[in-house]
Amino acid sequence: MYRTHTCGELRIGQVNDVVSLAGWVQTVRKFGAITFVDLRDRYGITQLLFGEDLNGALDANPLGREFVLQIKGKVQERSSKNANIPTGEIEINVNDFVILNKSAVPPFTIQDDTDGGDDLRMKYRYLDLRRNAVKKNLELRYAVNRSARNYLHENNFMDIETPFLIKSTPEGARDFVVPSRMNPGQFYALPQSPQTFKQLLMVSGYDRYYQIVKCFRDEDLRADRQPEFTQIDCEMAFVEQEDILNMFEGLVKRVFKDVKNIDYTEQVERMTWEDAMWQFGNDKPDIRFGMNLSNLKSAFSNGGKITSTGELINGAGFGVFDNAETVLAIAAPGCAEYTRKQTDELTEWVKRPQIGMQGLVYIKCNADGTYKSSVDKFYSEEKLKAIADSAGAVAGDLVLILAGREERTRKAISDLRLEMGKRLGLRNADEYKLLWVMDFPLFEYAEEDNRWVARHHPFTSPKPDHIEVMINNNPLIENADKYLEHPYSNIKANAYDMVLNGNEIGGGSIRIYQRPLQEKMFAALGMTEEEALHKFGFLLGAFEYGAPPHGGIAFGFDRLCSILGGSESIRDFIAFPKNNSGRDVMLDAPSAIDDKQFDELQIKLNLK
Amino acid sequence: MYRTHTCGELRIGQVNDVVSLAGWVQTVRKFGAITFVDLRDRYGITQLLFGEDLNGALDANPLGREFVLQIKGKVQERSSKNANIPTGEIEINVNDFVILNKSAVPPFTIQDDTDGGDDLRMKYRYLDLRRNAVKKNLELRYAVNRSARNYLHENNFMDIETPFLIKSTPEGARDFVVPSRMNPGQFYALPQSPQTFKQLLMVSGYDRYYQIVKCFRDEDLRADRQPEFTQIDCEMAFVEQEDILNMFEGLVKRVFKDVKNIDYTEQVERMTWEDAMWQFGNDKPDIRFGMNLSNLKSAFSNGGKITSTGELINGAGFGVFDNAETVLAIAAPGCAEYTRKQTDELTEWVKRPQIGMQGLVYIKCNADGTYKSSVDKFYSEEKLKAIADSAGAVAGDLVLILAGREERTRKAISDLRLEMGKRLGLRNADEYKLLWVMDFPLFEYAEEDNRWVARHHPFTSPKPDHIEVMINNNPLIENADKYLEHPYSNIKANAYDMVLNGNEIGGGSIRIYQRPLQEKMFAALGMTEEEALHKFGFLLGAFEYGAPPHGGIAFGFDRLCSILGGSESIRDFIAFPKNNSGRDVMLDAPSAIDDKQFDELQIKLNLK
Repeated sequence: MYRTHTCGELRIGQVNDVVSLAGWVQTVRKFGAITFVDLRDRYGITQLLFGEDLNGALDANPLGREFVLQIKGKVQERSSKNANIPTGEIEINVNDFVILNKSAVPPFTIQDDTDGGDDLRMKYRYLDLRRNAVKKNLELRYAVNRSARNYLHENNFMDIETPFLIKSTPEGARDFVVPSRMNPGQFYALPQSPQTFKQLLMVSGYDRYYQIVKCFRDEDLRADRQPEFTQIDCEMAFVEQEDILNMFEGLVKRVFKDVKNIDYTEQVERMTWEDAMWQFGNDKPDIRFGMNLSNLKSAFSNGGKITSTGELINGAGFGVFDNAETVLAIAAPGCAEYTRKQTDELTEWVKRPQIGMQGLVYIKCNADGTYKSSVDKFYSEEKLKAIADSAGAVAGDLVLILAGREERTRKAISDLRLEMGKRLGLRNADEYKLLWVMDFPLFEYAEEDNRWVARHHPFTSPKPDHIEVMINNNPLIENADKYLEHPYSNIKANAYDMVLNGNEIGGGSIRIYQRPLQEKMFAALGMTEEEALHKFGFLLGAFEYGAPPHGGIAFGFDRLCSILGGSESIRDFIAFPKNNSGRDVMLDAPSAIDDKQFDELQIKLNLK
Repeated sequence: MYRTHTCGELRIGQVNDVVSLAGWVQTVRKFGAITFVDLRDRYGITQLLFGEDLNGALDANPLGREFVLQIKGKVQERSSKNANIPTGEIEINVNDFVILNKSAVPPFTIQDDTDGGDDLRMKYRYLDLRRNAVKKNLELRYAVNRSARNYLHENNFMDIETPFLIKSTPEGARDFVVPSRMNPGQFYALPQSPQTFKQLLMVSGYDRYYQIVKCFRDEDLRADRQPEFTQIDCEMAFVEQEDILNMFEGLVKRVFKDVKNIDYTEQVERMTWEDAMWQFGNDKPDIRFGMNLSNLKSAFSNGGKITSTGELINGAGFGVFDNAETVLAIAAPGCAEYTRKQTDELTEWVKRPQIGMQGLVYIKCNADGTYKSSVDKFYSEEKLKAIADSAGAVAGDLVLILAGREERTRKAISDLRLEMGKRLGLRNADEYKLLWVMDFPLFEYAEEDNRWVARHHPFTSPKPDHIEVMINNNPLIENADKYLEHPYSNIKANAYDMVLNGNEIGGGSIRIYQRPLQEKMFAALGMTEEEALHKFGFLLGAFEYGAPPHGGIAFGFDRLCSILGGSESIRDFIAFPKNNSGRDVMLDAPSAIDDKQFDELQIKLNLK
């Protein structure tokens, strides 16, 4: 062992102990004949004092930043204490040292506020990982991992490893494939999730399964997606939706307690998908704050719930509202006194291409009970009040109204709501608010193919009382324009997402476990019987031999960690992440392979 | 919830409780008007009693093997108790039942001694996994997993995930590769181990890392190899070999305790590689029994240790011994009274092609102190006694002697020793004996290329006092015939294997952490500077910025589980294993992919 203690361990009680430490040189400060060195390791920083007697040795072996140093010496009380670090009361009076390894000057300093840009940090990830900020993230990740495992273990779940070299059955996302040398012309696929395997384990009677497991999706990467990502993957048999919701809100509460010391004792709120879309314009609403939507015109056609027919706004001669498919309002609390400059800025904000609105209408609910609006000339004060009331505005609030095509407007008002929430400090990073969103539509309409696609995945069960509708109707959409009238468009799934502060952190469903229903599902998604058998014959086969009712959930582990760590970026919570082109710039991967490999795999390039 | 209790839970204390259970029908036995059903789940079996009143319902909904059943009823004491199962004192008097799912007749019965062959079991793996024998294996696997994680956690190790899509740097084994759609013409590789990543984590200061992680090797599969396998992968910084040995024998002892309730308190034995080869003919000796080798002629040339020059056997006119490169003997305890038939059978055994010896010489050490041998006419009784003594034989033992080319003879006597150990009951499955084998040669000679290859891997450090030899000599082998005289052939590695009952369960080394030594190693393995930079530039780069001394180990998790489970086959300890052609016969993977996938990946087949 190169050390008797770590650099985070020694305290005033150990004064006079003779110790050895090993670590990295954080700083070197010379004061005349004596030299102070801060020595760093995973556990902390300890101050070293090199006295006059070591001057010669130091001159012969000068220390630099990030040198690896081993020292022996005696613990002594510091004359000038540092209350900011746990070892701040002591220092080591060094009597012997060995430079275990030297270091070139790092391309950026190993400090919380590094001077390295993103590219440099990724190229030298092994140095970036030394920074305390990154280390804390990986420690948090491990703490979440440990906490989740403990909870699941205590609840009788078994970690069972599922294979990585499986069969390519692209449904939705693209598979990464792996050519098989032993089976020329054939390919394995890397799993997008262990979905079918965990279901087979339920058929096999394992009852409560979990795994913290890598999954792979070959998709074009958006800012915060990785081609390989980690899931906390779980499945249970002999359960109904209620059992799953209880078990897994328990899991997240346990993680809150273990990792953040937060007692999340209240029941997790629940909301149907329809209500989420209706009240927040979004299927993963941030419910840390209100500002619920008021629908001033027709309701969302897909939701099917109509609570307004536009009587508050129609017929006043304001063409923008009269002609809009959808008009939505929110009340920003305490913003009635926004200046013209501020409302203009908000108007510009919604007109940016990312939001894509034509304009913004506002109503100021003044403290004195009067109303002032950008559409004064069309609406009487009484009308303005009625509109403001519908959005739940009170004196002092600013009502913001968007109008346009349904889908875009809904998305825009949701974005505006989140932006206002942020600006008004209503999205407190230290507040955690969980929400179950439930009863998603089972199918989505795919215009390009004029067919249904699974909103969750093809193994999700319809709500029990929608099974008959699914079984008894032909999935074929005869009239593309009227797909909304097809009975399938109203089938709800036995599916649920867990949302944390406006982020989906997990999602799951009760699964289909009867062969005929599963076959109907494959047919509904446009698969021929032959295709279904080719891709999922093993699952259909398994359902022949006594499949129990079952369901499960998968949490996005990277995302969960990043939210608990208060960051927007999952990349900061992954030891060796890839960039937006799927490259590991440190390794320089992917890369060319050699002719022998092509030859053995019996494939060749076919570059366009 | 479909149940109030599991099928393994109810006891006599719960008589009169009203319960519901769900599970699989194991057996149905009808006795006149009443029917007994054994209901099975993961936790056990509970007997159900269907009384006369349910006769009609059962006739209308007959139960079959593996049907999924939910019942309600009252716990009652059994009239005829079954002491073999924990629930054997009670049964459930059923008053209501629901068939949750039916089952076709399974292709084999779900019992310990299944009537399904291996192919059938693999095709219907989801049914095979229901068998108690297989379930116990996966439970043991999870117990080992949990125990290892707990030990490592308590010792400050952190689970840090390393990437699966990395760079192809084939050294030794073949990589599986993954074409990158986003980087056409380029490929990722799946990791053969997280070796370089865990070393980078040491450079990053993480100090104690572990992971239970899938690894991939595209090798021709021998009986008990899988293309994907699991490692318990560990690394520590600021340690010497002694620290690693202590830490990880602690890990295995903890697993013994947690999983098998074995107190393995004694220090794990240690043996140099040379001694292992010399005394057991094998680098992973089973030390549950003796029968150490006696070398009657020259010692192993590679070991370099000469303890006999053949004076016991040479010059007696027995050409077989006179002309042999190597003559090796073992003493089989208590076998002096073997009949001619038995010694003939042993002779046939060593002449089989798998062993490949020309014949077998024996010496019977009779109880009366006389000696009888198959080579009586060449050796006096005095000589025979001296030979027998050299093998440690006592009265009643049978000395077995093989002669021939060094490598083959050594392997043959080792096989013969293990076989005799098995026949004599000296290899007790319930006895666990650990051994560290250390000081392996750093290099092996590769005849085809006339160069050195790394015996362990290119990151293994030489023993500290061999570093100079490595640095100061040119690795080039000028005279292929005399490669043994090259200084590199005597360099020993700072490497260690953990052996359990004759199986290597783990292996590791102290790593190189200095760039110049690592460069010398790459050069020694025949890599040009350019190649080394292309493949491992990131590691060489990392060594520039303060790499600490470090080392680690990886345990073969599948193998460890199979030994602890008392099985020869790792496949029985993997939920979804592949067959010897690397196929998953249940999934029918690998398989063809479609044109769109080829097109997007910009590759095509090039079948021979």
